[in-house]
Amino acid sequence: MRIALDAMGGDHAPRVTVLGALWASREGVEVVLVGDEEALKAELARHGGSLPLVHAPDRIRMEEHATEVRRRPQSSIAVAMELLKRGEVQAVVSMGHTGATMAAALFTLGRVKGVERPALLVEFPSLRGRTFLLDGGANADCRPSFLVQFAAMGLAYAEALGAPAPKVGLLSIGEEEGKGNALVLEAFPLLKAALGGRFYGNVEGRDIFLGTAEVVVTDGFTGNVALKLAEGEAKVLFTWIKEALASSPLARLGALLARGALRRVRERVDPAQYGAMPLLGVEGAVFIGHGSADALAVKNALLRAKALVEAGLLERVRRAIAALHV
Amino acid sequence: MRIALDAMGGDHAPRVTVLGALWASREGVEVVLVGDEEALKAELARHGGSLPLVHAPDRIRMEEHATEVRRRPQSSIAVAMELLKRGEVQAVVSMGHTGATMAAALFTLGRVKGVERPALLVEFPSLRGRTFLLDGGANADCRPSFLVQFAAMGLAYAEALGAPAPKVGLLSIGEEEGKGNALVLEAFPLLKAALGGRFYGNVEGRDIFLGTAEVVVTDGFTGNVALKLAEGEAKVLFTWIKEALASSPLARLGALLARGALRRVRERVDPAQYGAMPLLGVEGAVFIGHGSADALAVKNALLRAKALVEAGLLERVRRAIAALHV
Repeated sequence: MRIALDAMGGDHAPRVTVLGALWASREGVEVVLVGDEEALKAELARHGGSLPLVHAPDRIRMEEHATEVRRRPQSSIAVAMELLKRGEVQAVVSMGHTGATMAAALFTLGRVKGVERPALLVEFPSLRGRTFLLDGGANADCRPSFLVQFAAMGLAYAEALGAPAPKVGLLSIGEEEGKGNALVLEAFPLLKAALGGRFYGNVEGRDIFLGTAEVVVTDGFTGNVALKLAEGEAKVLFTWIKEALASSPLARLGALLARGALRRVRERVDPAQYGAMPLLGVEGAVFIGHGSADALAVKNALLRAKALVEAGLLERVRRAIAALHV
Repeated sequence: MRIALDAMGGDHAPRVTVLGALWASREGVEVVLVGDEEALKAELARHGGSLPLVHAPDRIRMEEHATEVRRRPQSSIAVAMELLKRGEVQAVVSMGHTGATMAAALFTLGRVKGVERPALLVEFPSLRGRTFLLDGGANADCRPSFLVQFAAMGLAYAEALGAPAPKVGLLSIGEEEGKGNALVLEAFPLLKAALGGRFYGNVEGRDIFLGTAEVVVTDGFTGNVALKLAEGEAKVLFTWIKEALASSPLARLGALLARGALRRVRERVDPAQYGAMPLLGVEGAVFIGHGSADALAVKNALLRAKALVEAGLLERVRRAIAALHV
């Protein structure tokens, strides 16, 4: 099983992508680097490493428009997607332009039959483990039927990761049926009918971190705001904790002793731990990481992609969507 | 200047409401307790305190429907609102049923001229001080024009609290104009036209905690999800920190030394510090606190209500809305 890594994608590419790929390779992932041959060979040489390479002379930069990818078949993400389409690799991982990666996936691979809109699944740490939320930002405006498909795909993902009996919560502003905006009020009965006992009902913002339901569905606007808010809050809280722990000699000594414990909490909420999140609903296994990813995040993204391909993620998504139309 | 406190509102009323009112009274707030005379007198006697009382034999419980308030003129929140309407008090504070308080305010006081929908303003701590977000949940679905009015009211509030030159950010899923859902795309040019240089442009979820703009406007669905997510995240992060700090003898010693510093951070993100948030756009100063409020939160709510009435909040809101229609 081979995974194509868009080695030119992300803020620190190809430095961190090549290093992360080498680490993942040592842990048993067959990585194919896609990007500028010369740059990648130079990076590999720096580490005395070697990996299979596919040359792509062009790249989509973070500040470019997502639709550029359609006009740039020689870009690293477009070439990686072609490898996946031709079956030469079984997954694509990119820490590059989210929109361009989504556009390339849709354009090259198409959608799973029955899927109206692919969704980005994002992960939050929770009191009970982790919460998978979708859509994380692929679709700013959603129809109620999209949310039902997001739910089916989210359950398929949670099951592929080994969750025993995951449930779906509908993100709303009150637990009771009948609380919410127009989208939620319409989606609720559809989810109930489609999922039966796997539908938990409404959940609120706080339930994402409490872990009330393993899968949470919402429109891509709310989901993306939630994701970025959570990131911002964690960052700011740890900034304050750091400041507070430097504010007196006693606190500084305490901080020194408690450093390891606090670092473990910080790592728990660090997006790099998850590596990359899947774009669900396209006809292929596509994973998108954070542009600011470091080598650890790249390695984790490749390991997770491998695990999910091995767990049959794509086939699980196909079956879950097909089951909605029975 | 007198403030009516719905002394029967909230999960722990009248215990915490009476105690908080006594504390606020010692700090110079003229509080009028509204609620069951016998229960309130008994509470006052427990503390050997005395405060003016207005009897209200009924109360709206947290689990009742908001619209109940229209049929229950003897309920504590309805009586408090009547006192405000008749000018016997200058503000109403309630830690009770949010929906019932909003319904009572709309029904009894009506809207400020030009306001289509009153909004709940909620407060987040930020790296630069605090961020005021509206709507925090009064209007699940919003039209673009509502957001312009929220912006004007939010600026009026920030100015009443002394912010020198506050700006308004439009919550979206990308900084660039043109990123967002249908509501954001329509609201952007309206905000630009109405606010000129006081409009910052789009902000993302993370900017709420970074403090990029003092005022953030969004629909009540997204705003309420953001508020509850932030509360849930803080709660869970501190649970993990507590666990981590108890995980080894060294960490436990460190925790002991750093306890004060960590507590200060925790307090910073504790909603009780803010006490209560205003319902902006109704014809009167109405403040709504958290149902789980403790006596400290009640005291802080009363102190903040006094400060805002003294700063002419209602008149500022009237002028800000009128200026939109020039």
